[in-house]
Amino acid sequence: MVGGGRGSFIGGVHRIAAQLDGEALLVAGALSSNPIIAAETAAAWYLERSYDSFADMAAVEARRPDGIDFVIVATPNHLHYPVAKAFLDAGIHVVCDKPLALSVAEGEALAARVDLGTALFALTYTYTGYPAVRHAREMVRGGHLGRLRKVLVEYNQSWLMEPIEHSGSKQAAWRTDPTRSGISGCVGDIGSHAENLLHFVTGEKIAALCADLSTFVPGRALDDDANMLIRLEGGAKGTLVCSQIACGEDNDLTLRLYGDKGGLEWHQQEPTSLIFKPRSAPWQVFRTGGGASSESAQAAARLPAGHPEGYLEAFAVIYRDFIADIRRVHRGEAPHRNYPSVHDGLRGLRFIAKAVESARNGGHWVTL
Amino acid sequence: MVGGGRGSFIGGVHRIAAQLDGEALLVAGALSSNPIIAAETAAAWYLERSYDSFADMAAVEARRPDGIDFVIVATPNHLHYPVAKAFLDAGIHVVCDKPLALSVAEGEALAARVDLGTALFALTYTYTGYPAVRHAREMVRGGHLGRLRKVLVEYNQSWLMEPIEHSGSKQAAWRTDPTRSGISGCVGDIGSHAENLLHFVTGEKIAALCADLSTFVPGRALDDDANMLIRLEGGAKGTLVCSQIACGEDNDLTLRLYGDKGGLEWHQQEPTSLIFKPRSAPWQVFRTGGGASSESAQAAARLPAGHPEGYLEAFAVIYRDFIADIRRVHRGEAPHRNYPSVHDGLRGLRFIAKAVESARNGGHWVTL
Amino acid sequence: MVGGGRGSFIGGVHRIAAQLDGEALLVAGALSSNPIIAAETAAAWYLERSYDSFADMAAVEARRPDGIDFVIVATPNHLHYPVAKAFLDAGIHVVCDKPLALSVAEGEALAARVDLGTALFALTYTYTGYPAVRHAREMVRGGHLGRLRKVLVEYNQSWLMEPIEHSGSKQAAWRTDPTRSGISGCVGDIGSHAENLLHFVTGEKIAALCADLSTFVPGRALDDDANMLIRLEGGAKGTLVCSQIACGEDNDLTLRLYGDKGGLEWHQQEPTSLIFKPRSAPWQVFRTGGGASSESAQAAARLPAGHPEGYLEAFAVIYRDFIADIRRVHRGEAPHRNYPSVHDGLRGLRFIAKAVESARNGGHWVTL
Amino acid sequence: MVGGGRGSFIGGVHRIAAQLDGEALLVAGALSSNPIIAAETAAAWYLERSYDSFADMAAVEARRPDGIDFVIVATPNHLHYPVAKAFLDAGIHVVCDKPLALSVAEGEALAARVDLGTALFALTYTYTGYPAVRHAREMVRGGHLGRLRKVLVEYNQSWLMEPIEHSGSKQAAWRTDPTRSGISGCVGDIGSHAENLLHFVTGEKIAALCADLSTFVPGRALDDDANMLIRLEGGAKGTLVCSQIACGEDNDLTLRLYGDKGGLEWHQQEPTSLIFKPRSAPWQVFRTGGGASSESAQAAARLPAGHPEGYLEAFAVIYRDFIADIRRVHRGEAPHRNYPSVHDGLRGLRFIAKAVESARNGGHWVTL
Repeated sequence: MVGGGRGSFIGGVHRIAAQLDGEALLVAGALSSNPIIAAETAAAWYLERSYDSFADMAAVEARRPDGIDFVIVATPNHLHYPVAKAFLDAGIHVVCDKPLALSVAEGEALAARVDLGTALFALTYTYTGYPAVRHAREMVRGGHLGRLRKVLVEYNQSWLMEPIEHSGSKQAAWRTDPTRSGISGCVGDIGSHAENLLHFVTGEKIAALCADLSTFVPGRALDDDANMLIRLEGGAKGTLVCSQIACGEDNDLTLRLYGDKGGLEWHQQEPTSLIFKPRSAPWQVFRTGGGASSESAQAAARLPAGHPEGYLEAFAVIYRDFIADIRRVHRGEAPHRNYPSVHDGLRGLRFIAKAVESARNGGHWVTL
Repeated sequence: MVGGGRGSFIGGVHRIAAQLDGEALLVAGALSSNPIIAAETAAAWYLERSYDSFADMAAVEARRPDGIDFVIVATPNHLHYPVAKAFLDAGIHVVCDKPLALSVAEGEALAARVDLGTALFALTYTYTGYPAVRHAREMVRGGHLGRLRKVLVEYNQSWLMEPIEHSGSKQAAWRTDPTRSGISGCVGDIGSHAENLLHFVTGEKIAALCADLSTFVPGRALDDDANMLIRLEGGAKGTLVCSQIACGEDNDLTLRLYGDKGGLEWHQQEPTSLIFKPRSAPWQVFRTGGGASSESAQAAARLPAGHPEGYLEAFAVIYRDFIADIRRVHRGEAPHRNYPSVHDGLRGLRFIAKAVESARNGGHWVTL
Repeated sequence: MVGGGRGSFIGGVHRIAAQLDGEALLVAGALSSNPIIAAETAAAWYLERSYDSFADMAAVEARRPDGIDFVIVATPNHLHYPVAKAFLDAGIHVVCDKPLALSVAEGEALAARVDLGTALFALTYTYTGYPAVRHAREMVRGGHLGRLRKVLVEYNQSWLMEPIEHSGSKQAAWRTDPTRSGISGCVGDIGSHAENLLHFVTGEKIAALCADLSTFVPGRALDDDANMLIRLEGGAKGTLVCSQIACGEDNDLTLRLYGDKGGLEWHQQEPTSLIFKPRSAPWQVFRTGGGASSESAQAAARLPAGHPEGYLEAFAVIYRDFIADIRRVHRGEAPHRNYPSVHDGLRGLRFIAKAVESARNGGHWVTL
Repeated sequence: MVGGGRGSFIGGVHRIAAQLDGEALLVAGALSSNPIIAAETAAAWYLERSYDSFADMAAVEARRPDGIDFVIVATPNHLHYPVAKAFLDAGIHVVCDKPLALSVAEGEALAARVDLGTALFALTYTYTGYPAVRHAREMVRGGHLGRLRKVLVEYNQSWLMEPIEHSGSKQAAWRTDPTRSGISGCVGDIGSHAENLLHFVTGEKIAALCADLSTFVPGRALDDDANMLIRLEGGAKGTLVCSQIACGEDNDLTLRLYGDKGGLEWHQQEPTSLIFKPRSAPWQVFRTGGGASSESAQAAARLPAGHPEGYLEAFAVIYRDFIADIRRVHRGEAPHRNYPSVHDGLRGLRFIAKAVESARNGGHWVTL
């Protein structure tokens, strides 16, 4: 793993998720740009090898006969590109946190690099790993919603409602810093999850948007709240809302879809349920893990219905599918690529850029 | 009552709500433009006097010593203005259904007429009568939310998701007909409720909006779905969403507010609960009827907590307050005007006009 | 109405419910044993005739050509029998609050009196009037649950968790006084509702029970909490729980049924939803007022789905059905008797007596 | 690990939970009584050492310098005692699945063995590992509920509502077989969880109970449903309900407590929320992971609020605390014993025995 050392939220998440199904072991890391933190975290995690720099790690691991099979990029956004590139160049498969990179240009370069090479690449858009989200996708694909008309996607948090970036929160500090986070704060950090969830489930791209971005906390350099009108390429319309100043909301990612045959509703904070709203019939509540859900949803579940699986398990589904692909490649088989790709990440970067562009122009419509 | 005869939804609602607290009796009506339906409905409702035209009714009732104290206008929108005006001119108090009139011009004329006269006027924005909504207003006024930052208001229904206006639904027919409904369908019918609820609770007006109106059902002349970005005069931003094609939603009016001290959430379909989300403390669930709610909320409740009160009771709160004002006026006292006014209605008409204007111009921002 | 004057909870409820559908007008009353309260309440309610005693009222109204069609008995329990009997003897139809009477003996006498006469009799087991409860009964009758195996019924409140009977609460005072309430407090007051709801929906009687009754508030003469094991005549088993000391619960009446084909769940505090749990399929949520519910449920609803109806509306359904029967009798037709009967009340009194008997014998099983 | 091979539900759960926090690695196993399944499962799990018998494993591992630090007992119930004893005798720490053993006698022997030795022993009563359950315990300890009056605990499932033990379900087969499961089916399997959850949170023992056990599925040898009246040693009363034939319920473990100052409610299927019901104030909803929960609850959480943790994470909390104790013992420190003990298991066996005794005697009260 690169990045993710002590003080990081997502580092520990990657560590647990990557190992959860017993298909991988974390053995090496360049866990912090601060060598002391890097070493201490590596020791606390019982890693066999700790590096002071990601470049060293890529070089050394690529040469070792027992070198790592894949690397996890868990750094702030500005390092995604150089770190991922270094390991790709060394022929090592890459799992990268989102958003893909700092800018569309970086994202395009990275996508080109992945497309040209043989190393596998996965982006951890966590929420695609939930069984209920997989089931939602199957329902859309199966025509249970008919033609989509209206889509409402939201991702509301409150943790940045005060200027905690000035009082010691490392996570807040880099997320509100344009040099490390990119051109957007809230849209980049969580709006991108909302965009990807919408795309993953519906299979459709946002064709146009009109965005109102705000910075409510005085002195903050990046947006901490956004409201957008969106239009999908298939004709559906709706809103995409995200906020990190929504007082009282923890991590409220919600998707609602309405077609001409049925509707769907999912809440990340109660992830094991999916509500289906057929035309002229009672609502149905699918519970993950049960026999009523689709094959694809059952493949993503580990436990029988009623035994809640959560965020770590969803994260680990992405790893499980990615590692299965590595094994396939080792066996000379074609990978299944059943996880978010570098192109999903690039589409996300373009979404972020267009949202910022729309907002800067006073909230005009822009096409994607 | 004028209008509201057999086949109307809202006529029966007004009848029950007006009489619910035992403070009024419905005795006379011009219940339909069809004299047979008018007479039959009057008989079914045990009315003492049935008229063939509202003009006759206004004239005759004004002269009778036992004439009506107030009239209920429950017609389609295009008749609100002439009917209300006729009774105001006859010196009879008026309760009028929303939206106020067919156009801003009509609304301005009506507001001027009300302001110049002595007759009382109430507009039945139903949802302001819920105890939980009253409590929400008290919480905002009491500063429990701090300065508002984000507002999300939605009103989603599904009943017009198919062209039922062509298969015998009287209610669908006039609501989708510009000559009877005005320049907007969905925004006029229910978006106006959303606007009023937002104003009632926050005390703030929408300062600017950017609207995307749609007509999803082929052949329909008016919008059946809308998504808007809004900005309040006090600096809060957010979305106002309404739809009559949201498959599976019955009558899902929802309000969410986020300030710098607290958040609030209310769902009309579970109207007896109000969720308060204080900063850095667990969510609190207020139940109406209980001792924990504000004086104003308790005044709007009739039953102890746990005995659900619903839509009819909320409607009846508006009537109760209006009738109390009539009694005050009879006693020579000043009215309290604790119900939506003609100016609330006029503000609503302007909101509808601006939403349509924004959408027609390709979804540009307009100021109100 | 007899009883129900100022200070009563249920008097005002009966008044609204009886008149809600515009099929009856409250014109006369003996509203309190205190003549001053009786007169003042009658004036506040705009009654035409106020009596100092129920006996006078029965006698005078029976003789008047415009005498009342039916009487509402809204007194404390100990007066149900004498009041109801007086009006039945005078040939006046009776709507009586529950429980039916002070004792099984009184209940048997009243049932015999009703059976022998021609006057109609309804008992206001409120919760049978909810559309969702009607729909639940249809689902059981239609075989959607299969053979019942397990039943869980609860009715938990908190309002008597402190000795408020000693600090001025009239309602608490008579409910905790054996001379006015009978041999049981909590079981008589709300356990009887739970028993009746279970019977109404399942059509089955409790065949045996084992009860643990408690008095948690020191100095109280009657039970304020009960836990029971129950067995239905058809072989299902389960629990019946009621409490008036369950801190934080307002009026939490809940029914859960499990058969060999499906389950059902209903919560009085969210009365417009009914959850159906079919074997091997997702849960379904029926919303009252919608087209998916049964004819019987739709007949009990006044509003389209999404417009909540509550406690008063449920109460008023009983009145509507009762008044329709009075009109049938006036027309010489047979009544439909679509409301709780004197025999439902008698079964309830036997249930109360058996629960007390079981508890007094140390919690042994007793058969009914 | 002993037991838990292919076809087992709980084996895979133990494997993930034990390793989730990166503090242990599964290296050896005797995963099935069938040597082929044992070997195949060991290979699939990348174990270094696979044994054909638990006795061999205990003997060999005890001798190896790199032998296991602790064993996981994930067999059917009848093997808990011999397996645990073998490893305790070999000086190896033990984590054992519940219930503790096949009988009270076995349980007493095992408890005596643990008490006499130095090896640590943990019982995986999973639900004690949830942060919300830890917080509930702190609230009771902190006096927020006052003196307990009423307790309602339920554990309802549906998976055994048909005789799947005859159609190839290994898990159903041993759970319904007295020789492998003990004297009770449903009470032993899940009623024991309910008893332990109640004890864990309240700190109180059941002093007396009265049980009605049923076998609804024809031909089944053990109970598949139970309803009990219970009395706690501190004076609270209530019910304990469990079922494996409750159609439509997946894994519905629910705890409700009512004291004279507050109430608590927790649902295992929405494990991240805990509802507190203070006297005379709105309900509060604690979300795990947030700053509002107690130190003990936060120690059991890995993620910030809004990132759901579920069943596996709860399970892993028990392992984390157990492994921390092993490290303490290795360092010569006293263990903290912050996990269910052999004595919790013994109390559970006595509860099972008493429930069966009560039911066999026709549902009489028995004291514990």
